[in-house]
Amino acid sequence: MTHPRHVFLSGPMGAGKSTVGPLLASAIGATFVDLDTSLERETGMRIAEIFRSRGEATFRRLEADVVRRLVAHERRGVFALGGGTVEDPETRAFLLDRGVLVTLSAPLASLVSRTTSDPRSPTSRPLLAGDAPSAALARILERRADAYAEAHRVIDTSEGGPEEIAARIARWLPLDERSICVQLGRRSHRVVIARGALASLGDELAALEPSRLVIVTDANVRAEAARWLSSTTTPMTWVELAPGEANKSIASIERIWDAAIEAHVDRRAVVVAVGGGVVGDLAGFAAATLLRGVRVVQVPTSLLAMVDSSVGGKTAIDRAQGKNLVGAFHQPSLVVCDVDALASLPGRELRAGMAEIVKTAWIEGEGDVAALERDAERLLADDDEGRAARERAIHRAVRTKARIVASDETEQGARRLLNFGHTLGHAVEAASGYALVHGEAIAIGLVAALRLSVQLGHAEPAHVARMTALLERLGLPVAWPGHGAEALARYLAVDKKSEGEQLRFVVAGAPGRVRGVVVRRAQVLALVDALARG
Amino acid sequence: MTHPRHVFLSGPMGAGKSTVGPLLASAIGATFVDLDTSLERETGMRIAEIFRSRGEATFRRLEADVVRRLVAHERRGVFALGGGTVEDPETRAFLLDRGVLVTLSAPLASLVSRTTSDPRSPTSRPLLAGDAPSAALARILERRADAYAEAHRVIDTSEGGPEEIAARIARWLPLDERSICVQLGRRSHRVVIARGALASLGDELAALEPSRLVIVTDANVRAEAARWLSSTTTPMTWVELAPGEANKSIASIERIWDAAIEAHVDRRAVVVAVGGGVVGDLAGFAAATLLRGVRVVQVPTSLLAMVDSSVGGKTAIDRAQGKNLVGAFHQPSLVVCDVDALASLPGRELRAGMAEIVKTAWIEGEGDVAALERDAERLLADDDEGRAARERAIHRAVRTKARIVASDETEQGARRLLNFGHTLGHAVEAASGYALVHGEAIAIGLVAALRLSVQLGHAEPAHVARMTALLERLGLPVAWPGHGAEALARYLAVDKKSEGEQLRFVVAGAPGRVRGVVVRRAQVLALVDALARG
Repeated sequence: MTHPRHVFLSGPMGAGKSTVGPLLASAIGATFVDLDTSLERETGMRIAEIFRSRGEATFRRLEADVVRRLVAHERRGVFALGGGTVEDPETRAFLLDRGVLVTLSAPLASLVSRTTSDPRSPTSRPLLAGDAPSAALARILERRADAYAEAHRVIDTSEGGPEEIAARIARWLPLDERSICVQLGRRSHRVVIARGALASLGDELAALEPSRLVIVTDANVRAEAARWLSSTTTPMTWVELAPGEANKSIASIERIWDAAIEAHVDRRAVVVAVGGGVVGDLAGFAAATLLRGVRVVQVPTSLLAMVDSSVGGKTAIDRAQGKNLVGAFHQPSLVVCDVDALASLPGRELRAGMAEIVKTAWIEGEGDVAALERDAERLLADDDEGRAARERAIHRAVRTKARIVASDETEQGARRLLNFGHTLGHAVEAASGYALVHGEAIAIGLVAALRLSVQLGHAEPAHVARMTALLERLGLPVAWPGHGAEALARYLAVDKKSEGEQLRFVVAGAPGRVRGVVVRRAQVLALVDALARG
Repeated sequence: MTHPRHVFLSGPMGAGKSTVGPLLASAIGATFVDLDTSLERETGMRIAEIFRSRGEATFRRLEADVVRRLVAHERRGVFALGGGTVEDPETRAFLLDRGVLVTLSAPLASLVSRTTSDPRSPTSRPLLAGDAPSAALARILERRADAYAEAHRVIDTSEGGPEEIAARIARWLPLDERSICVQLGRRSHRVVIARGALASLGDELAALEPSRLVIVTDANVRAEAARWLSSTTTPMTWVELAPGEANKSIASIERIWDAAIEAHVDRRAVVVAVGGGVVGDLAGFAAATLLRGVRVVQVPTSLLAMVDSSVGGKTAIDRAQGKNLVGAFHQPSLVVCDVDALASLPGRELRAGMAEIVKTAWIEGEGDVAALERDAERLLADDDEGRAARERAIHRAVRTKARIVASDETEQGARRLLNFGHTLGHAVEAASGYALVHGEAIAIGLVAALRLSVQLGHAEPAHVARMTALLERLGLPVAWPGHGAEALARYLAVDKKSEGEQLRFVVAGAPGRVRGVVVRRAQVLALVDALARG
């Protein structure tokens, strides 16, 4: 979150890391560091020699150590990494955390011609030894495809000279420094979290080279959305939906499909969701299914959508039997969270969004919960301090969510932790006839889940008290609205996460101690009943 | 296609390959071959020694050579492979082609305890040297997860003793020998192609351990489907749809969603499509979106569905503006093609299915086209010879399609070749008001595509004549029905594969020489117009 940050240039040999690097460093006033050179200096050995005498695994460990030392040492550096530096998942995560990671790439033919005409001796390219260069390079690119995709940007250096590439990276840097990369191999993407980010929305969309933009929005944000997209030259199709959860239906999806099809979209079209969680879920599901999948960009305008629904690729519609029962996992190509866009958000919606932030902080650990406790009143303030506090809180929440989603994209394991407070929260929300908004119901669900955790032996009463106090300072309800087990049973029965008579449930203790357990549905219902009676 | 076949046991160290192997070999009357032992004998060196002195890459090459020699030499063998043998993609494809590849697996803890209590010296496990066994094994399993999933079966050996595991493999073998593995990493699955396969449908479904089966079928096959599933003990929910393309709509999808939700399905439910292409597409799309994705099993009962829609994971519905404009890529967990199920298929449907078989053969090459030319009349015969010929033709078509899909799951490249004959075929089908069934339109589209290929300089008139003769012998229309460019323009405009004013088009020459080109839409329309005028 401190800016400016380091820039790491990754990519295969021949992509231009050591050509673009010094130009970029001079453009932004940073120090250029060539990792290979530093490594040779530190070890007193040539790269090829280390490879030969100690093997690739040892070389990678050495490289990972050196890059960590250099990062700690430099004030602001532009690093030309080795071609395989990012193959190590820990190093990759470290680089994405400590700076802006840019992959330079180029078509195979360009790489081969640049590499073979390289004045360096062939032995300085140890991975190419003893093989036809293009076959060897193709294999390396295939093996590293996921690793190279996990970057803030991937830039094709065959389009434009090194000066132009350096200038592009420098121009994007202010936003990229405020971006989190969701690491999902070839489905990786950035989440931009910055005040004023929407001023660059047109530029960001143009970088995706869309054939057409299908803008999905609702009456509440339509006028603003038109302003944010006023400089866009790509053909646009607008779909304005009626606001509210009641419209999160297949009928709305059909409107998006038909508008897009009638505009003759092809597979290079991009759907852009501008609005809250309902718009994001609808646009995402429509994009997941249109022509069997086109790209989607999420531009959340509510706090809840920024920290929850826009990140992670879950899309859904409701059915008469319950919420989110139909949908798809469809990762966005980009998420743009402009904290200033929250200025017009009603206070109730702002407070509701805080419930997911508290949930995520509790999953992350003590540091993030303490940060919220320090900032609680400021987080709701309508001033510069408030906006800065919100930007920090959103950044932390997205960082945690991105890490969890990267480890478990389709909710087979770790991602289930994000349901903390949700099993009961969803049921309470439904049982209230949606008089409670989602975040309010989740606040109640979080306290209830902690109470159940006490009864199941996972938490202390002090944890319930701490959670309750924080949520109350954030203006959220924590009291059970008086619905008994009967009212909730119906909604628990169709919960997506239920498996037969067993119910997955997320219990918690102290911050950082959140985990999933399997309990009998009857057990939860009995406990819920007891709680309802006070 | 010749039975019985070799059995290859793969899986990590400690999974039980060398324990189960000899038991299985004796049960099926085959020779047991331990690859590591053979390798040590051939080289005169210990495995660990080869690893140490020559490196892992050399060892894998050596291993690949030895396994090829042994496979050619043995009449019928049960092979215990090395733990990493299948890491090499070429070896893996070779094994899947030459026999039944079974991955034995077990939870990490079992593997560790079995491996560390192994009487073999630790140096015989070179990949475990110098590390905590469980961490090293976890890393190996993660690295090989995709490779291990690309097998005919994955069996957890922690459930049941070695005799029981061997008996299960032996029992499944007759069908697995007639199965093709679609290699898609963790989305890999089998396509069973065998007369009488449906007798084992209940057994196959039970192996997926579903919490509930949602059977989607139509009035034409409902009675047969009930018979095939009569022994099933898993709870079932039946959804009977009205037959025909007109029902390939969102309304049918909603019926499946609601039936499943009202039966309280959870994520371990399996949707089973029993019927032709329409049922398969509907059930597949409903499964892709129900609870954000549950498993689907395809049981195609038409020839077209067996060779085309059931393999490859494409699912879709139609919209008023055109066919298949909405859908998802959702790979089945299993496909069961019972050639005997075609007995009740109307002759017109059988002939229509042959068009896709011809298309696929033309993509594959001379051998497959010549095989169809040898068998043409037999392929339509209602006797044992006819059924055997159809089984062979389906097997070849699925093998080609599986290979193409594995190389390009979401149609970014090679898979587009499968659209050979389809750009014009779809337009002809629509322009006929669906008086032509899909396969008939594709037959016309194939001849038209070859004619256009001649005009574009990719084919000779002799290729058109050869294609025409084969399709005619299979009872398919080849003549243009007289619709001009105007009628087709409307349908070409909303083609999913169009990109702006450019149109992707698949041209062909001789069998095996099929490739994609990009042409201007106007160019295609002009050629179509000329053809329409004769």
